[in-house]
Amino acid sequence: MDYNKIFSDGIVSLPPSPIRELLKVSQRPGVISLAGGNPSPDTFPVEDLKICFEKVMGEKPQKILQYSPTEGLSELIEAVRSLSLEDGIKCEMDNILITTGSQQGMDLVCKILLNPGDEVIVELPTYPGSLHTLRSYKAKITGVPVDEKGINVNLLEDIIRERAMKGKIPKFIYTIPTFQNPSGTTLSEERRKYIIQIAKKYEIIVVEDDPYSKLRYSGKFIKSIKSYDEEGFVIYMNSFSKIFCPGVRVAWMIADKEIIKKMIIAKQGMDLHTSSLNQAIIAEFLKQGKLKSHLDRIVPYYREKCDIMVKTVNECFGNRIIFTSPEGGFFSWITLKQDIDTKEFIYKAIERGVVYVPGSSFGPGEEKELKSSLRLSFATVNKNDIKKGIEILSEIF
Amino acid sequence: MDYNKIFSDGIVSLPPSPIRELLKVSQRPGVISLAGGNPSPDTFPVEDLKICFEKVMGEKPQKILQYSPTEGLSELIEAVRSLSLEDGIKCEMDNILITTGSQQGMDLVCKILLNPGDEVIVELPTYPGSLHTLRSYKAKITGVPVDEKGINVNLLEDIIRERAMKGKIPKFIYTIPTFQNPSGTTLSEERRKYIIQIAKKYEIIVVEDDPYSKLRYSGKFIKSIKSYDEEGFVIYMNSFSKIFCPGVRVAWMIADKEIIKKMIIAKQGMDLHTSSLNQAIIAEFLKQGKLKSHLDRIVPYYREKCDIMVKTVNECFGNRIIFTSPEGGFFSWITLKQDIDTKEFIYKAIERGVVYVPGSSFGPGEEKELKSSLRLSFATVNKNDIKKGIEILSEIF
Repeated sequence: MDYNKIFSDGIVSLPPSPIRELLKVSQRPGVISLAGGNPSPDTFPVEDLKICFEKVMGEKPQKILQYSPTEGLSELIEAVRSLSLEDGIKCEMDNILITTGSQQGMDLVCKILLNPGDEVIVELPTYPGSLHTLRSYKAKITGVPVDEKGINVNLLEDIIRERAMKGKIPKFIYTIPTFQNPSGTTLSEERRKYIIQIAKKYEIIVVEDDPYSKLRYSGKFIKSIKSYDEEGFVIYMNSFSKIFCPGVRVAWMIADKEIIKKMIIAKQGMDLHTSSLNQAIIAEFLKQGKLKSHLDRIVPYYREKCDIMVKTVNECFGNRIIFTSPEGGFFSWITLKQDIDTKEFIYKAIERGVVYVPGSSFGPGEEKELKSSLRLSFATVNKNDIKKGIEILSEIF
Repeated sequence: MDYNKIFSDGIVSLPPSPIRELLKVSQRPGVISLAGGNPSPDTFPVEDLKICFEKVMGEKPQKILQYSPTEGLSELIEAVRSLSLEDGIKCEMDNILITTGSQQGMDLVCKILLNPGDEVIVELPTYPGSLHTLRSYKAKITGVPVDEKGINVNLLEDIIRERAMKGKIPKFIYTIPTFQNPSGTTLSEERRKYIIQIAKKYEIIVVEDDPYSKLRYSGKFIKSIKSYDEEGFVIYMNSFSKIFCPGVRVAWMIADKEIIKKMIIAKQGMDLHTSSLNQAIIAEFLKQGKLKSHLDRIVPYYREKCDIMVKTVNECFGNRIIFTSPEGGFFSWITLKQDIDTKEFIYKAIERGVVYVPGSSFGPGEEKELKSSLRLSFATVNKNDIKKGIEILSEIF
């Protein structure tokens, strides 16, 4: 049968994730992969996970192996609420939804907000996984450049103002304000407040994706955009993938309860609920207060790698690049001052045993301003290989 | 903010699942719930699950707690392939996709096949969870009645022929051929072959949802529609929810590899992949050959309850109803010969301490022919309560 006759309009034009294709190459033995966005397996709380599994399986196996409420297990929602309050986000139980990773969070946001052709504003560069979901909903995606203080809020307002004058403002702004993937930059406090002003003025939703904020290696804590949101303009997403482990597929969202209600209805049609077993394990992990000691272990682990990357990049590339030292997260973003397309060098790099992700993967189109950039991750690579990999790259560029 | 201004067309008109609302009532203490579709927690393989968890966490924690391929862990895909071959379904590794429950399978089918307004044919009655997903994609849903041998294939062909003459055939036929939810009926072998003929003749996809087929209490094994499919018209879905436990959210699909490829791209934007930890546990369970002994334990457990329900229904209702004894699965479907709407009696039943699901929940619209029916599940209720519950219902109707 010729399936092309029957595929939906949304799927026909949807390419597979370029990064996931690249990651297959990076798994070849001997290749130094600075490409992946995975957390380091060295950080996974294996023993704590076993302890929590035994506890919950001993106490309530019949409950946690059964179907459970779409919104999440109440014990996890309660634990997430406490965690959020510590971070300055005011919320009640019915402001929280447990999701099957933040990728599902993004899917839910699109499902409840987007009609085909609706406009969404993203950071330029931004996370390709979210671009993929947006494309699958046939969104019109507009990028707003990021500088060393995060998204350029003046340009952001210019675009929204212009759209408002034409009578159709974008459905939402998608941002990763803290230790952004891929740029590594953090949105300043001043700009966070400005974004809230924009949201109020134009009545536009802000989707704040915040998986890295607990992985801070330097500088001081900065509150989420959500914590400035008094009127329900911000849909906040966070995840256990980087601070616990990704294999369990558990994340959470915080939003106005009207939005959460719609998302629950949408999630019923997507996967009924997130794994009850995995939710229970994490709820127990949080209840036992293990997150703090876990972070106390993994933050210095990542900090050391981050420092090595920053130092090596500065030593090897000097003033040939534009580069902002990340204060946390997994990523460094290098922009070469030469006018070259890093995509064209990827096979050369692979030949020399190093993989990175070319800048053009991080935009909705073929943006010129991303071509001379590349993303490097220090999370999963060992310390020697971080140095070696960057040294090789500095010879290639 | 008035969110109604910004919600998508798809979500605005989407009601919450009526059954899930009803289930909240049914969890009140003292209520006999014949309403739920849950498997019995008594059947959950608690000890085996612990053993498998310890094994995989001992052997490869760093792998199974990490991000993993969208299509599924290769060890689970291989195990599912063996299982399918035993059931007469020919397939290779690239014909299989692991999903976060079959609800996600349905979401994927809709995502890759449906544009808003596309027609889909379902059985009348059918599973409300699938109706919910179909509605969320703004499908036009057409019901074809089920009798004691399953969906009426002559009527089915009449409808498709008529649509073909108008130049637009439905995108797919959704069927639960074995121990159907809610009717309990099983599609005959003859009709299965006929559906394959229809699929070939009109080039129409058949989505076969098959979560119950391993729970057979009487009669003899009947091959899936998929096993008659030589040319890739059938998308097959099966699940570990009923034969292992639902809390892990692991299911699988088998289809032509072109279809699987598109679903992988779609799933990347939905949840990246299904929990690697849970997949690894189930792969180990299957690899150790534990499924057979597990089924040997749970099939007699359910058979006993099924027999009690069938016997009590016959004793209490006699010839006041139309009723087909199920040969497996979880459900009995009663159609009263009186012209009444069972929805109107639900509160009276709750007052008397019994819950069932009214027939009208199982159709895309307010179908007259479903109104005098009700679905009863024997899966989670204890033997005395099955009798007592049905006795009370026979006094109400």
